[in-house]
Amino acid sequence: MAETFADTADRPGRPPEDAAAPLGANAVAELEALATRHLVQPWESLEHLGQEARTLLTGAEGVYVRDARGNRLIDGPAGMWCMQVGYGRRAIAEAMAEQAMSMAYNSPWYSTSPVAAELAARIAEMTPGDLDHVFFTTGGSTAVDSALRFVQFFNNYLGRPEKKIILSRGGAYHGSTYLSASCSGKERDKVYLDFAKDLVVHLSAPNPYRRPEGMSVEGFCDFLIEEMEAKILELGPERVAAFIAEPILASGGVLMPPPGYHRRAQALCRKYDILTISDEVVTAFGRLGHWFASEAVFGITPDIVTFAKGVTSGYVPLGGFAISRAVVEQVAGPENKGSVYSNGYTYSGHPVSCAAALANIRIIEQEGLLEHVREIAPYFQARLRELEALPLVGEVRGLGLMACVDCVADKQSKNPLALDKEVGGRIDAHCQELGLVVRPIYNMCVMSPPLIIEKPEIDRLVEILRQGIERTQDDLEREGLWRR
Amino acid sequence: MAETFADTADRPGRPPEDAAAPLGANAVAELEALATRHLVQPWESLEHLGQEARTLLTGAEGVYVRDARGNRLIDGPAGMWCMQVGYGRRAIAEAMAEQAMSMAYNSPWYSTSPVAAELAARIAEMTPGDLDHVFFTTGGSTAVDSALRFVQFFNNYLGRPEKKIILSRGGAYHGSTYLSASCSGKERDKVYLDFAKDLVVHLSAPNPYRRPEGMSVEGFCDFLIEEMEAKILELGPERVAAFIAEPILASGGVLMPPPGYHRRAQALCRKYDILTISDEVVTAFGRLGHWFASEAVFGITPDIVTFAKGVTSGYVPLGGFAISRAVVEQVAGPENKGSVYSNGYTYSGHPVSCAAALANIRIIEQEGLLEHVREIAPYFQARLRELEALPLVGEVRGLGLMACVDCVADKQSKNPLALDKEVGGRIDAHCQELGLVVRPIYNMCVMSPPLIIEKPEIDRLVEILRQGIERTQDDLEREGLWRR
Repeated sequence: MAETFADTADRPGRPPEDAAAPLGANAVAELEALATRHLVQPWESLEHLGQEARTLLTGAEGVYVRDARGNRLIDGPAGMWCMQVGYGRRAIAEAMAEQAMSMAYNSPWYSTSPVAAELAARIAEMTPGDLDHVFFTTGGSTAVDSALRFVQFFNNYLGRPEKKIILSRGGAYHGSTYLSASCSGKERDKVYLDFAKDLVVHLSAPNPYRRPEGMSVEGFCDFLIEEMEAKILELGPERVAAFIAEPILASGGVLMPPPGYHRRAQALCRKYDILTISDEVVTAFGRLGHWFASEAVFGITPDIVTFAKGVTSGYVPLGGFAISRAVVEQVAGPENKGSVYSNGYTYSGHPVSCAAALANIRIIEQEGLLEHVREIAPYFQARLRELEALPLVGEVRGLGLMACVDCVADKQSKNPLALDKEVGGRIDAHCQELGLVVRPIYNMCVMSPPLIIEKPEIDRLVEILRQGIERTQDDLEREGLWRR
Repeated sequence: MAETFADTADRPGRPPEDAAAPLGANAVAELEALATRHLVQPWESLEHLGQEARTLLTGAEGVYVRDARGNRLIDGPAGMWCMQVGYGRRAIAEAMAEQAMSMAYNSPWYSTSPVAAELAARIAEMTPGDLDHVFFTTGGSTAVDSALRFVQFFNNYLGRPEKKIILSRGGAYHGSTYLSASCSGKERDKVYLDFAKDLVVHLSAPNPYRRPEGMSVEGFCDFLIEEMEAKILELGPERVAAFIAEPILASGGVLMPPPGYHRRAQALCRKYDILTISDEVVTAFGRLGHWFASEAVFGITPDIVTFAKGVTSGYVPLGGFAISRAVVEQVAGPENKGSVYSNGYTYSGHPVSCAAALANIRIIEQEGLLEHVREIAPYFQARLRELEALPLVGEVRGLGLMACVDCVADKQSKNPLALDKEVGGRIDAHCQELGLVVRPIYNMCVMSPPLIIEKPEIDRLVEILRQGIERTQDDLEREGLWRR
């Protein structure tokens, strides 16, 4: 087996140049034809179905991905906020293969595995407070769906079936099942899909950059908390079950709530007996320099935290949630007859996924990647903030290794540029030519590189992004769509 | 790497006896303590949380699993209806590790991979009719959830937002997200959880064994179809969006609808413009001797088929659905502006999962496992049916390598035995002592072994099951709970 693997250097990211030879033109054309004909991908534009395939990627090493034509690009979004330890990690590949050989699967309905038990214990250690019980799913969407189903179960079992409303926020993203998607707060995603509207109420997006004019950041925090309390009282606290929140709204544009927001929101929830769910699918496993960010960065101890993505560095699907012992104990134990949480997945605690997660965690520990993120993040943020000098850029914001470049029509109005071919996509197209994958979201470019990124790669990332934005500015002016 | 793998024989299932040495007693106790303290598993009885761990499995080869104490057991349910090609397949482990080294992840939002494109094309070939478009998810629950969200999208886009009701059946199981679970028809799972009651209407379970007394099987089929049509007319066809059905209701107890049922149900759906979803999460990938069973076994061409489990033989999470070109074309193409299916998962088309699936499919082809199932299934079914002679057994039913032993209080009433410690669980406990894992479901024992099973292993499976049932009969009589 060993001889068939691409050989990697001690530190991934700098493999031999022939590690991923480009495919021949015929093979590329054939694969693109298969993808075009047969694949429906996330957020597929059916209007364009069959017309073009998404970029065919065929290789990756360290912080780089390689397309089928042999171009090597810095992976700005780390896959989909997930590739923490970088591509080409032999230790993870081996852990998966060894687990697949020794026991590829066990049914979690009637059995368990050493790796699932170990991983649950590790996650219980990493999470704040008494979040000691861990339920595994297949990703972030099912983590949120299952956490919310636990909340429903909890309140039904406690005899208060009317306590069911979930508070979420504008700009939030919580997944793609019917229930988790119902918590998302992005209007564009809602045009042709259905949602459990009776179950979810959305509060304002905690977006300080676009706060009401003339309001201070502190005043904006007061506004958000007052809005939340007013909504709880309007609905009736006896009907509000949970508040779900990303510590930083990730795909909403790396929105960072005002200082103190999370602590005050949690205090409100405690006051009204509302469970708090911190959706750490993006922020956990080192993205902000800690295993979990809720307590370490934001000073809160939620009742439930969800995780996915970084837990395996995306090498294999895995997600889940950890829940407070104090909450579970209210519906557990011999005095709670018939208390069965009738929910679970064939792949809950999948041994190959758990083995990959344990190997991933060992890498993060052995290479000191949490410390590395805490050390390098200020440089990453400072370099990116230089882009605020560009006329198209309204704000660069972020924390840890998450950042967003928010493009605007003009810096006074802060209005996002809404174009047929959107600004983020235009910048991404230029950057891909220059050697960088950007995560474009409408008028924004999101950056969340692998945690192993070093200063020279940050410099290159920022330089390409600057050029990509400058070229986009030129294009927009030439087309009469914008003026500096 | 190779030297760290357990060495397997040419044909898995007969590895060296030391392949999975049992753990020491201390290690077992420690792992069980971690599992007890930290794992919440599917259908967890919180009443018993922290009191005992589920059986700790540590190894598996071919059709066998091994517990932490070194006992070797035939895996009667093939994990969770998923371990088609058997445990310890080096070709799958290698495919996963190689993909993990060359490109462990790519974001399906903006890229695709050779393996996702190839697998989509393979599945399009395998599925009946014009089911040419494939959407990948992380398992069966998300496959059903996403398929139903496609149906919602489809009808909203076509300007008929009132066409939303999903028809399902009693005894059905369609997953564990809020929406997929809402389609399930098992009353016991519903006690403390919530469901989208406005979206799903359940028809009678197509269970010929427990059909109304005095009614022929043909008459029962008429009854089911007439009930379905009456329900459609009562609801109004303009409000009914889809009919979702497992070809054989799997965890409902391997319920096989009367001959002709599926064809007639599909004809009704065509008549009333209702989409048909065949949930083949269990029945596909060889379980009934074919890649997919809808057309090959039941003569229907659904609009959508869902799959999971067998697609990777459970080696790694993967699911998805294939959908008809004719359906997609109604909402696709340049004339359908803004037609975006805003749904998808971080792990949609995960390259490691797709690589495992392709390796799994190659094994099924190279070893002729579809043909093997068609050849050996009659023997499997005939041997199991011998158990109908036991007084506790009401019926043994099944097809392909799926079967169910249905235990009854007496053969006249056919009433299931409802006991505090359920009959299936009692039989399973005896069988585990004797070397067989059973999937107990209330009063039933379900059998769905790996597709590679051979006659000697079938003989052993049936012999152990017979002894397990006989011992249970003796226990029940001794305890005064049942009499023969």
